Amino acid sequence: MQGKRKMADEQKITLAHGSGGSTSYELIRRITRVFGKPAAELNDSAVVGFGKSRLAFTTDSFVVKPVFFPGGDIGKLSVCGTVNDLAVAGAVPLYLTASCIVEEGFKISDFKKIVESMKKAATQAGIRIIGGDLKVVKKGEADGIFVNTAGIGMLRSNVSISVDNAKPGDKVIISGSIGDHGIAILSQRPGISFRTNVKSDCAPLDSLTGIVCRFGKKVRVMRDPTRGGLASALNEIAMASGKTIIIDESAVPVRREVGSACGLLGLDPLQVANEGKLVAVVSGSVAGKICREMKKNRYGKDAAIIGEVFRGKSGVYMKTIAGGKRIVEMLSGEQLPRIC
Amino acid sequence: MQGKRKMADEQKITLAHGSGGSTSYELIRRITRVFGKPAAELNDSAVVGFGKSRLAFTTDSFVVKPVFFPGGDIGKLSVCGTVNDLAVAGAVPLYLTASCIVEEGFKISDFKKIVESMKKAATQAGIRIIGGDLKVVKKGEADGIFVNTAGIGMLRSNVSISVDNAKPGDKVIISGSIGDHGIAILSQRPGISFRTNVKSDCAPLDSLTGIVCRFGKKVRVMRDPTRGGLASALNEIAMASGKTIIIDESAVPVRREVGSACGLLGLDPLQVANEGKLVAVVSGSVAGKICREMKKNRYGKDAAIIGEVFRGKSGVYMKTIAGGKRIVEMLSGEQLPRIC
Repeated sequence: MQGKRKMADEQKITLAHGSGGSTSYELIRRITRVFGKPAAELNDSAVVGFGKSRLAFTTDSFVVKPVFFPGGDIGKLSVCGTVNDLAVAGAVPLYLTASCIVEEGFKISDFKKIVESMKKAATQAGIRIIGGDLKVVKKGEADGIFVNTAGIGMLRSNVSISVDNAKPGDKVIISGSIGDHGIAILSQRPGISFRTNVKSDCAPLDSLTGIVCRFGKKVRVMRDPTRGGLASALNEIAMASGKTIIIDESAVPVRREVGSACGLLGLDPLQVANEGKLVAVVSGSVAGKICREMKKNRYGKDAAIIGEVFRGKSGVYMKTIAGGKRIVEMLSGEQLPRIC
Repeated sequence: MQGKRKMADEQKITLAHGSGGSTSYELIRRITRVFGKPAAELNDSAVVGFGKSRLAFTTDSFVVKPVFFPGGDIGKLSVCGTVNDLAVAGAVPLYLTASCIVEEGFKISDFKKIVESMKKAATQAGIRIIGGDLKVVKKGEADGIFVNTAGIGMLRSNVSISVDNAKPGDKVIISGSIGDHGIAILSQRPGISFRTNVKSDCAPLDSLTGIVCRFGKKVRVMRDPTRGGLASALNEIAMASGKTIIIDESAVPVRREVGSACGLLGLDPLQVANEGKLVAVVSGSVAGKICREMKKNRYGKDAAIIGEVFRGKSGVYMKTIAGGKRIVEMLSGEQLPRIC
């Protein structure tokens, strides 16, 4: 007994704990138990009452490497990430705080670029940056810069969106091609030997979720499939809702370059991170209409209905192009550290 | 011209930029200019409208070293820090998010201790932890654990507290002895050769600020003098309010051990960090009463009126015990990295 406890106490944090996949999921469940029943649970934002309104509140730390990458930088990413967590809760993003941990010796010009990039992304999303903090640590005690953002939004009164709200007959929509962010970051890593033109899809999704939210309670779940990719987002929905989700491989948009890179690296595009994509589970009765409306938005041009929700055991399956059916698993272990 | 610009671009972030003193102050002013006019400016929290209520919103990143120190740990510190930023804005702290950046190899048992410590501090302060995030970076890319907290509070309707609100005739109150946190952390650093029994004063101040806020608009400014100490907090008040503040050395509570340690290390206790102290600038007409009420609270037992606000040029002065008068300067350069 004593031996067993000692072993457990000496367990160490591994990169897999930060992967966004099943190992993170388990650790986060263990931690959240300490806090009782947090409002956020496995949703992207916590939703709580504030005065007579409902408020969405979320936070994320960003440790992406490299700090500047094709399609964005840590500043843009940190603002979009938090805006998107509010947006997929069905909230209108309002206020943001930003806090930086910077390694001694980091160039002030790069810091300024990052701050300007935050400002630009915030202006685009209509969110106000209203506070912040700066900590500096000695050379070697951090790697460049880490950024934390926290955001507040006001919940739309007509929606009731939650990860456990998928119903049989609902359709699954993805707003565009998957895996772009992960592959863009991977292509920049020293030691990874491939060239690609793929850019991160990093973008604020509040205008797109605004369109979807016009359909009120017909919208059941919204997620932005970041770490762990579409596979992890769908598995979380299936588990929380106690439903089976079946997606159709031929319907899932994947850029040719992303498909090739994934083939080369032995990755499943379904498990690769996105930073500007929306997964929406919506009533089958309005799915086609929502998808058409999404296509009018710059971030939803390639929106597609990719699957359906069924009664049955929690799980996600995919009808393959080859005509088979396979389990879609949550990312397990580490795929790529510091993807966001 | 070109040469000058190039030089400026190649400037690097230094530890002094994170000191909480004048170098941080300048950099933060430069950054906040990019964001327009942030609501927080130099206040501890930003105050904005939300529905029909007024909301205080704040964030801080914590990089304290060591992670466990006499009187607390990074978990307690991160919750108290954010609770206090809300409390000194005159708000009732309500909701908190916590986000951790953890170095690969960090002990899970230590991580659990920190999380439990956050939970305990949050329960004491009556704030609910409702969301979080976890990022893991490779060994050597961070130093142990960094914690970010963001918090929301509801502003009391009867107060109007702001750093620029000090008026001639107002009195300055400090809630207890200064410099305890800084000296407790310093005493734990390898290479620093002194022993002391000083514990960090790390504590949630919401109950104490609640007492002060009963005096409504007679309360002009509240601050928690963290990085940069009492000296920086008073200088920020004097600058923002355009007033002269004169404090009385004999009235400022300093523990004997803290005084000795400061003497030994060549530090000014006025510039040493606190994590559980309140500075309040209040109308002279109620200062005595407020001070007596504060003494009834466990965190205000040693409260004292230490100075007064005067018409005149922005600045802070101290009447010394020796009978002289000296300028109280904002901390400049680096005193001690990773104090919080």
